Amino acid sequence: MKAVFSILVDNTSGVLSRVAGLFSRRGFNIDSLTVSETEDPAYSRMTIVSTGDDDVLDQIEKQLAKQVDVKSVKVLSPDDSVTRELILVKVAAGPADRQAVIATSDIFRAKIVDVSASSLTVELTGNQSKISAFINLLGEDRILELVRTGVTGLERGAGCMSDSIED
Amino acid sequence: MKAVFSILVDNTSGVLSRVAGLFSRRGFNIDSLTVSETEDPAYSRMTIVSTGDDDVLDQIEKQLAKQVDVKSVKVLSPDDSVTRELILVKVAAGPADRQAVIATSDIFRAKIVDVSASSLTVELTGNQSKISAFINLLGEDRILELVRTGVTGLERGAGCMSDSIED
Repeated sequence: MKAVFSILVDNTSGVLSRVAGLFSRRGFNIDSLTVSETEDPAYSRMTIVSTGDDDVLDQIEKQLAKQVDVKSVKVLSPDDSVTRELILVKVAAGPADRQAVIATSDIFRAKIVDVSASSLTVELTGNQSKISAFINLLGEDRILELVRTGVTGLERGAGCMSDSIED
Repeated sequence: MKAVFSILVDNTSGVLSRVAGLFSRRGFNIDSLTVSETEDPAYSRMTIVSTGDDDVLDQIEKQLAKQVDVKSVKVLSPDDSVTRELILVKVAAGPADRQAVIATSDIFRAKIVDVSASSLTVELTGNQSKISAFINLLGEDRILELVRTGVTGLERGAGCMSDSIED
């Protein structure tokens, strides 16, 4: 099972190292991780995707919540949250097969962001299933290089994670 | 000065913790970090944005290259690379001012991904200057919650970082 953890942390030096250390020490798996600033300069926000059985995912949530730097942890459930990922894919495509890649990109509303004599670079945003479908359709053997941001997300509705922080 | 480091690492447990530890131990700053799988399951790719003077940025590159898990490090220069970031912003907007947020989103080709009685959630992809302009235009006091993936990027042209790995 996969779970997406959204974690509000103090924007202090070493916090990423401590969270990454927790995962590595306990043998928890990290599928993807993003960390960046938020609307409030005092806090950063991490989004970690991890795989494990219910017990492991439960342990991860509890261990994260125990960390001094961690202000709030939420599991983003598919039903009541929006999760997105961005990928950039460099595809081998000469003048002859450039049009086919552009047609595939159009279907997925992906954007061509770079063209060279023998390659195209495409940008796509979506949830994980959309992105996997796009990669499959392009054909893995044509992909020269691929980089993904990893998943990020917010809960649906007007609620905020920072509301739950006690000052 | 800001620099974007693209780092190809072995997909092994603890690699994130070691890289994060290097930054924290040496007092290097991390503005954003993304890590995720690549086209090759043996490797993960990190993109780290860091700020510092030329000396510090040079040090970071050298120290990263020294790590056992690190297969290749490249500084993505603005001139010959494509960098992108994805943000999700939850904005306070009732029925009366919903239209204004939608109009602003249209200008930036941002997508509305959730609506509630008192909020809208908007998805935007772009480089950092586009994203900053969008946030400024929305008005920081209306932003309820914001999450960014952090920057990711690829070099322009048909070249690949994995070409430089010696087996």
